[in-house]
Amino acid sequence: MRILILGGFDLERGFSSLLPICTLHERVAAWKEVSGRQIQLYIGDTMDYEALAAVFQDVQPEAVVHFAEQRSAPYSMIDRKHAVFTQTNNVVGTLNVLYAMKEFAPDCHLVKLGTMGEYGTPNIDIEEGFIEIHHKGRSDVLPFPKQPSSFYHLSKTHDSQNIMFCCKIWGLRATDLNQGVVYGVETDETMQDARLATRFDYDQIYGTALNRFCVQAAVAYPLTVYGKGQQTRGYINLRDTIRCIELAITSRPGEGEYRVFTQFTEQFSLVELVEMVVRQSQRFGLEAQVKHLPNPRVEAEQHYYNAAHTRLIELGLEPHLLNETVLESLIGLAIKHREHIDRNLILPTVNWRMAKNEVSRTSSR
Amino acid sequence: MRILILGGFDLERGFSSLLPICTLHERVAAWKEVSGRQIQLYIGDTMDYEALAAVFQDVQPEAVVHFAEQRSAPYSMIDRKHAVFTQTNNVVGTLNVLYAMKEFAPDCHLVKLGTMGEYGTPNIDIEEGFIEIHHKGRSDVLPFPKQPSSFYHLSKTHDSQNIMFCCKIWGLRATDLNQGVVYGVETDETMQDARLATRFDYDQIYGTALNRFCVQAAVAYPLTVYGKGQQTRGYINLRDTIRCIELAITSRPGEGEYRVFTQFTEQFSLVELVEMVVRQSQRFGLEAQVKHLPNPRVEAEQHYYNAAHTRLIELGLEPHLLNETVLESLIGLAIKHREHIDRNLILPTVNWRMAKNEVSRTSSR
Repeated sequence: MRILILGGFDLERGFSSLLPICTLHERVAAWKEVSGRQIQLYIGDTMDYEALAAVFQDVQPEAVVHFAEQRSAPYSMIDRKHAVFTQTNNVVGTLNVLYAMKEFAPDCHLVKLGTMGEYGTPNIDIEEGFIEIHHKGRSDVLPFPKQPSSFYHLSKTHDSQNIMFCCKIWGLRATDLNQGVVYGVETDETMQDARLATRFDYDQIYGTALNRFCVQAAVAYPLTVYGKGQQTRGYINLRDTIRCIELAITSRPGEGEYRVFTQFTEQFSLVELVEMVVRQSQRFGLEAQVKHLPNPRVEAEQHYYNAAHTRLIELGLEPHLLNETVLESLIGLAIKHREHIDRNLILPTVNWRMAKNEVSRTSSR
Repeated sequence: MRILILGGFDLERGFSSLLPICTLHERVAAWKEVSGRQIQLYIGDTMDYEALAAVFQDVQPEAVVHFAEQRSAPYSMIDRKHAVFTQTNNVVGTLNVLYAMKEFAPDCHLVKLGTMGEYGTPNIDIEEGFIEIHHKGRSDVLPFPKQPSSFYHLSKTHDSQNIMFCCKIWGLRATDLNQGVVYGVETDETMQDARLATRFDYDQIYGTALNRFCVQAAVAYPLTVYGKGQQTRGYINLRDTIRCIELAITSRPGEGEYRVFTQFTEQFSLVELVEMVVRQSQRFGLEAQVKHLPNPRVEAEQHYYNAAHTRLIELGLEPHLLNETVLESLIGLAIKHREHIDRNLILPTVNWRMAKNEVSRTSSR
């Protein structure tokens, strides 16, 4: 099976991964050395339909894993131009993928990266894509109501609707992976060669809270929690996300089938996460402090959260959980690369309540 | 109160309204003559943020009625370029309106034209924008699940999500009018001067089924029903749509409030509509034939349909229903302009199942 991985985003403003990352070409070459396998590489923009369609014609893919979207919520909230870019790039890019499938590879299976953030925090259990609703004596199974919380998350919701429609009218096959927050940097593949290492982002635009906490602990910077910290989300180990994509590809949906899998393995609140990092840091002799900041996002800070996530388990996923070993390796990584940590990248300067934000470098403390 | 009406679409491919329509400038001048009132006119594109923002700065509107979207489902299904244009123009145009409000008129009330087509045909009652869902012992009031049925209808669903989000994060005020199919050409205003006449579209791209049936009856062309004809939708008289906009504007939502009104007054199936036209045509001495065509759309042809529509009634809407007088005037209009009817514009050549359609003129019969 050949899998086509589309594009990826370069970063603005000099934010960079804590770990030095090899170029795509270097990593493809390293993988060839390690595994003997050649990944066929096409560099292109999903907004360029002719280029995209040519790849579909050439490759005739069985499956396409579409990760080629603007991936940051804070980025989408910087200002109007970033919001419009995010929605145009993501929505039109995905429309182009759908048309290329219909025109040149109608049996291809689209595996599309969505996000748990499409759902928001409803006061009922979140189901995997669809919910059976009983209402005034009748019932139907309908798309789960979405309450996305940034222009980025909205773009994913728009994608989901467009994909569902194309499955219906054209008989396309698609799996929408509503992914939780990913943590971890190691997989069996990346561990085979240092050049295969993947990103570890901790900055205010691309970083995740857990990565930020680990980096803050490593440089004795207070661990910054946005708001009350009761915000609960689904989390998943990088190893498991890779396995989930594999499971999605190998269990092909039927013609016209639009499937939704929630792709996470555990739920944590921010406060739970930060406490885990504080506790683990002590084993490194670090005295981590916690500091609550005004929340730059507009989101419920105390809410019910319980999301179903059984379909990938049923397909064979064996979760790697967020245990002490994983935390130890993440904090250890931050300590190891301590001298590369830029404290000025950490504090949030994109406020959801403003139409225009300056993404500024902030002085430490 | 000054109301800003944004833009409108020019037509491709020489489709034109059965009634000759004066230019916007001519109609504004005619309205000045008739009413003594001067409508301040700005011509611009919602995709041009600087121009749009300048109008908001200049006018400081209390309310903005946003009708400036690509409005045709078949148009959006012609091919990829038309789909991408529809979603980009509608979604980004509305994002621009939202940013202009936030930046330059944060108390302005957005009255946005949506469509009943956002909902599709669920097997439960359609509620006005939100539904109380009871699920596994808990409950919440959530956005009504949407199942839009064209790239055009999808664009409106995307808009709705974006607007709801901006009300939440920026405290904007908005009313989303989920409108049914509009029929009729007369209002108290248009009847005051022939130059104020509005459109009557019957072609395959911009026409509605009811207009098509009236035109077909007038020229003894079979009345073409797509598929089984049990497709049921909400309908509303043009007089009532105008009144609904007025009612929406005069009942201002609170800060941060996102309201949804379903804007229709009656439900009919296609078969019910066509039978009404056949019956009424007989009074003009016309022998109308009904012909079922393969459905160019992908939609359920037999389904449950019951949509709530009480909020505008509660605000004071007094419906003008689709009675014999209204049908008589519509068929009479078609007969009056019979010699301008172009039979080649009627038959559908945009098929939802195809990624590329040629919008061709079809020979009659």
